[in-house]
Amino acid sequence: MSRGYGVQFHPEVSHTRQGSQVLANFLYGICGMPGDWKPGSIVDREIARIHAAVGPGAGGGEVVLGLSGGVDSSVAAVLLQRAIGDRLHCIFVDNGLLRLGEREAVERTFREHFHMDLAVVDASERFLASLAGVTDPETKRKRIGKEFVDVFQKEAQRFARAKFLAQGTLYPDVIESVSARGPSQTIKSHHNVGGLPERMKLKLVEPLRELFKDEVRAIGRHLGLDGTIVDRQPFPGPGLAVRIVGEVTKERLDILRHADHIVTTEIEKAGAHKGLWQYFAALLPVKSVGVMGDARTYESCCALRIVESQDGMTADWAYLDRELLARISNRIINEVRGFNRVVLDVSSKPPATIEWE
Amino acid sequence: MSRGYGVQFHPEVSHTRQGSQVLANFLYGICGMPGDWKPGSIVDREIARIHAAVGPGAGGGEVVLGLSGGVDSSVAAVLLQRAIGDRLHCIFVDNGLLRLGEREAVERTFREHFHMDLAVVDASERFLASLAGVTDPETKRKRIGKEFVDVFQKEAQRFARAKFLAQGTLYPDVIESVSARGPSQTIKSHHNVGGLPERMKLKLVEPLRELFKDEVRAIGRHLGLDGTIVDRQPFPGPGLAVRIVGEVTKERLDILRHADHIVTTEIEKAGAHKGLWQYFAALLPVKSVGVMGDARTYESCCALRIVESQDGMTADWAYLDRELLARISNRIINEVRGFNRVVLDVSSKPPATIEWE
Repeated sequence: MSRGYGVQFHPEVSHTRQGSQVLANFLYGICGMPGDWKPGSIVDREIARIHAAVGPGAGGGEVVLGLSGGVDSSVAAVLLQRAIGDRLHCIFVDNGLLRLGEREAVERTFREHFHMDLAVVDASERFLASLAGVTDPETKRKRIGKEFVDVFQKEAQRFARAKFLAQGTLYPDVIESVSARGPSQTIKSHHNVGGLPERMKLKLVEPLRELFKDEVRAIGRHLGLDGTIVDRQPFPGPGLAVRIVGEVTKERLDILRHADHIVTTEIEKAGAHKGLWQYFAALLPVKSVGVMGDARTYESCCALRIVESQDGMTADWAYLDRELLARISNRIINEVRGFNRVVLDVSSKPPATIEWE
Repeated sequence: MSRGYGVQFHPEVSHTRQGSQVLANFLYGICGMPGDWKPGSIVDREIARIHAAVGPGAGGGEVVLGLSGGVDSSVAAVLLQRAIGDRLHCIFVDNGLLRLGEREAVERTFREHFHMDLAVVDASERFLASLAGVTDPETKRKRIGKEFVDVFQKEAQRFARAKFLAQGTLYPDVIESVSARGPSQTIKSHHNVGGLPERMKLKLVEPLRELFKDEVRAIGRHLGLDGTIVDRQPFPGPGLAVRIVGEVTKERLDILRHADHIVTTEIEKAGAHKGLWQYFAALLPVKSVGVMGDARTYESCCALRIVESQDGMTADWAYLDRELLARISNRIINEVRGFNRVVLDVSSKPPATIEWE
């Protein structure tokens, strides 16, 4: 007689006490799994899979990959370079929704350090135009996804021989975007699991599709990737657009970018980023009254989102030192024209999400 | 030869280190002031002033006072009752912008405990109607001020013999609203220093006009007022309307009232209110994404404003225990339908203000 096992809660989320123990008991005790996960073995397995899909030798297929500079696509790129060498072509789309200095850092790392074939496309005006007047978060994501596909597709056509598209999709993206079995409501649509491969008639290569973030980081380290990339905080595909509540404008992007840079540098300078999952600024388009000198101000509000998490599936808001928080708040209010108030997001995920949109 | 003394900064604000010492040196050392301020002597002085203005005996004038239930008007009321007994008539206008249970508490204290002549007017629908569609903070304040004057004036006409209007105006209200000498920009208009007396052809009695909050509290205690009133946190005249950024609606008032009650009770239950100047909730009409069960939420954001201050002129945001903050945040998100995110305001005054509008 076969046995069935089931749970009516979420043992896999870190908020569940003893949840890992429940899973460990099941996997090691009942199923008799060996527990022999090692970055090296995953790398070997994924290289074998890539070879099987793309072809192993010099005559194998070519692959284009959308490089964002984040952990996921960076690890995917280095993994693919390891597997297929210069048959990998990377495309970086500057959508104008990036953080300060982000594009330059990507060029430095992948072009100069890894010597990859990296095409950089500046499409910021196009993205901004398509976001004009849009306030609904899902519409923003869809517009950005569509622009990305258009820009990427056009650029990818330069690589006529490429029949494969690689993406750094992780397991949490898969869970949140598509239902494994049966209907489960879409929380957010991830444009990197969208309609790109169908339109481009490319086969999808997703070497990280079964992995969680901490596993991807371990693999990245194993592949010799720099700590500044491997330990980088996650950054959403739609970028700063989903950190500006309401309409995205050039002006709002500029002030958010400035504030976000203050958040990042102050936290890192204090060494407080160790143990943090993400730390960033968001723009809330609510005007509140303030006073500067003897004059009245009426400006937007900057929200700080600073969280601890194991895997991004659940997250706790982090409570920085008072002094550090005060320094960040004061610097933003004093240095960034357009913000006269700073708030700290003290909501856990769930029921809030890490990103505001 | 006479000596002139001047400063090019603000020694009187608590953020200025040694500022009190600068002033003390000047007042006690140079000017030779005795430093003999005592609540009793201020009470005697103000009662004498009230007698001089209104008339001391049974044949003296009658006074109407707008009682809000806050420290200022409560102390003014008890001071006036001490001076002129039942020639004082109090009017409480329920503008629908009050906190949970506030009107009932005022009735209990002043009618049942102090046996004052207290008229309570329910004008909430009228205020709400006049606020429909209004988003500008100054317009809100002006509309509320106008409604208040209309409602109050109508009610006050019942006291045909009253020729005096008493108000609990404090010195900071005077500074922020009017320029002592020369032009200084209006930060916010205080409706209680507005056009009421002119329209009603009443003479103004403001026994607290030269005092700061801490002095008013000392006087209140001296007059035997209950700690729950004397130590009450300040509450603005326009009430919850200036704690709802954007349009004020019945629905928003209800959810803010609910969240504010959670903030107040949790902080007081933990004993954390000692040393706090104000602790309250504000509603930010920015919708952000969350997840409840397996469904997506898209709700408003609740801001916590929790500050320490000596006099309301400057204020520091307070750093509550993480556990207490988390409890407040979780309760609001789980119990108040309409909020799916909570933020803590970490802005000091200046350059932010305590209230959002």
